[in-house]
Amino acid sequence: MSTEQQPDVTARVRRTATRLADGRELIYFDDSEPYVSGAATRRLDDPRPLPDRYAPVVDADGVAHPVTGPELRLDPLTGEWIPMAAHRMNRTFLPPADANPLAPARPGAAYQDGEIPDTDYDVVVFENRFPSLMTVPGVDTGTELVDGEPLWQRRAGVGRCEVICFSSDPTASLATVGPRRMRTVVEAWTDRTRELSALPGVEQVFCFENRGKEIGVTLHHPHGQIYAFPYVTPRTQAMLRQARAHHETTGRLLLRDVLDAELRHGRRVVLESEHWVAYVPYAARWPVEVHLAPRRDVPDLPALTDAEKADLSTTYLTLLRRLDQFFVDGDGGAIPLPYISGWHQAPVREGRDVSRLHLQVFSVLRAPGKLKYLAGVESAMASWISDTTPERIARRLQELA
Amino acid sequence: MSTEQQPDVTARVRRTATRLADGRELIYFDDSEPYVSGAATRRLDDPRPLPDRYAPVVDADGVAHPVTGPELRLDPLTGEWIPMAAHRMNRTFLPPADANPLAPARPGAAYQDGEIPDTDYDVVVFENRFPSLMTVPGVDTGTELVDGEPLWQRRAGVGRCEVICFSSDPTASLATVGPRRMRTVVEAWTDRTRELSALPGVEQVFCFENRGKEIGVTLHHPHGQIYAFPYVTPRTQAMLRQARAHHETTGRLLLRDVLDAELRHGRRVVLESEHWVAYVPYAARWPVEVHLAPRRDVPDLPALTDAEKADLSTTYLTLLRRLDQFFVDGDGGAIPLPYISGWHQAPVREGRDVSRLHLQVFSVLRAPGKLKYLAGVESAMASWISDTTPERIARRLQELA
Repeated sequence: MSTEQQPDVTARVRRTATRLADGRELIYFDDSEPYVSGAATRRLDDPRPLPDRYAPVVDADGVAHPVTGPELRLDPLTGEWIPMAAHRMNRTFLPPADANPLAPARPGAAYQDGEIPDTDYDVVVFENRFPSLMTVPGVDTGTELVDGEPLWQRRAGVGRCEVICFSSDPTASLATVGPRRMRTVVEAWTDRTRELSALPGVEQVFCFENRGKEIGVTLHHPHGQIYAFPYVTPRTQAMLRQARAHHETTGRLLLRDVLDAELRHGRRVVLESEHWVAYVPYAARWPVEVHLAPRRDVPDLPALTDAEKADLSTTYLTLLRRLDQFFVDGDGGAIPLPYISGWHQAPVREGRDVSRLHLQVFSVLRAPGKLKYLAGVESAMASWISDTTPERIARRLQELA
Repeated sequence: MSTEQQPDVTARVRRTATRLADGRELIYFDDSEPYVSGAATRRLDDPRPLPDRYAPVVDADGVAHPVTGPELRLDPLTGEWIPMAAHRMNRTFLPPADANPLAPARPGAAYQDGEIPDTDYDVVVFENRFPSLMTVPGVDTGTELVDGEPLWQRRAGVGRCEVICFSSDPTASLATVGPRRMRTVVEAWTDRTRELSALPGVEQVFCFENRGKEIGVTLHHPHGQIYAFPYVTPRTQAMLRQARAHHETTGRLLLRDVLDAELRHGRRVVLESEHWVAYVPYAARWPVEVHLAPRRDVPDLPALTDAEKADLSTTYLTLLRRLDQFFVDGDGGAIPLPYISGWHQAPVREGRDVSRLHLQVFSVLRAPGKLKYLAGVESAMASWISDTTPERIARRLQELA
């Protein structure tokens, strides 16, 4: 690619933080002048009559119940913390099926059914209104026993669940926003990772996107989510165990050696740029799976250089476009891939010395119209079986280069 | 319940083993005289022209490829073995969509599209024709490196995948087969656990049932599956870690103490019989989840007494019938619950001293027509979030008593 053709992926982000009517934080990340949203001269207030989210909930008998937020229970069988999100049952508001709460407010219309109180935006992040994890001020965050039973441990489900909108255009997708906007998304992920990592009790920040009705997404507006967990998730714990054992034996980073092995043989490498490599992992378990890793050892998104982020902004788009051509229908038309895409970052405190940033993108689509279901073997035993081989996945992605 | 009303759940099982045309084992478990299948006087041969399943596969160029069976790859990121079932792509036979390969052969009709070469049966078990795990005679079972890379370990996917048909009636379900037939199913599970545990390389036997199109079941004939794994599955490994830690601290069995705590408080106990207790676990993660455990400490199904198996045959039916009333539609009609039901048994060798048998039954149905999808948090991070509380699940199951 010549210099002339290089897309403009300079970070030019104007960050404007505000609050929604119920106290939730909302942050605009604008990249296009004149900044369409977030400017101090524009409307920033959320006019909805939402009650403060920390205000006590009054029941039918007029009794006020303090908001305690989600509860975490420790599963004694597995040692995993399970958030109980039943407080979300207290939902007072559900948008009509045809409403899009992620669309910008309509000019001139009464603003009522959307979450974003401006008539346009580039990228915007806000706290989920019905979060699985939420820090409620003043709530005790210590672990306690239920009924005095040592096997029944609980604590407050502190943390955050945020929504990130990649575009104000409800018909766009992350693959079509262009490198400049992707760069803004990368800046927003980086910002959120940095800020959420600093919140009390947060142990891990996870930026991810669920796309497609096949995985239960009912809102087609292009968006992702960001979770700030108060524990290290089970998959990350498994990866840390492996990475620590490898480090003890070899003195090296596991994911560095994984990347080097892939580069040495090349069979499953599907995309290379100056700073990034995409490959199908040796033991890929999903019908489509690819990992995107930086060439340099970095623990998380905030550790990336400007050059690495600029490169990522074009490389990830290339990868997403290929994934959207992975399957074709009977007429040879590309089938947009339902996928889950998530950033594996070093936890906030634990295991940072053995962690290495990578993006995992995968799909449950086995073939047009055919899904991999997670039944007994996967759901009851957490044991995966691949219906294909990593080499077949890689060959298809290489064909599309 | 008076003695007069006690159902007949005596074990009266006639076991007849045979082979299908391609060499797979098929075993009839008959409980009703005159034994409708499996009698030596009846047709037992499979007349289909199936090639021996271990015979070399000849490709389009006339080149013969030896059958090597499924491959296991060790995921370096998590330490988990992943079977690569791409050999299943060599399928030479797929039943037409309207055929039921689990139905008995039709009397008088040319037997061709079914797996069971008899005109009737009570309970039957046979090796899956396209298994994810299969022991191929003569194949080296040692671990080797691919391309000499220490991070790329592979070995043969030895083991077995079996199908168990609970009834010859395609419209039946396990909940409706009656206690006598359920007893036969329990005997078949016990038999298979005992036999498969003795196969070389098998580390864990898992008897389970997937029911409902919501979890991808396309064959509605009442059936389950039995997997003989050549490794201890990730969930079992997690449970062993917890059980060992508990045993080291207290000297006691973790699942004994879990059961005792549930019985002490009773809030989540939904069913009690002489030998069995069903409860919703403290940190249940699924929208519907219940565990059924014996009162006596036993590691696996073969360790159960006759009395415990007889009791199980009625108790499990009671539980399944309640689960099929858990959700009701708009007219108050019960909605048959899509569910996964699996027996957690002690592995063959490892951790038998800290394991305790229990059945886990759970569903992805959150509400009529609403599924819990496993998206980014569950599928990428293996972290579960409950959309309800265990106490709500228990209250509903208690209501149905």
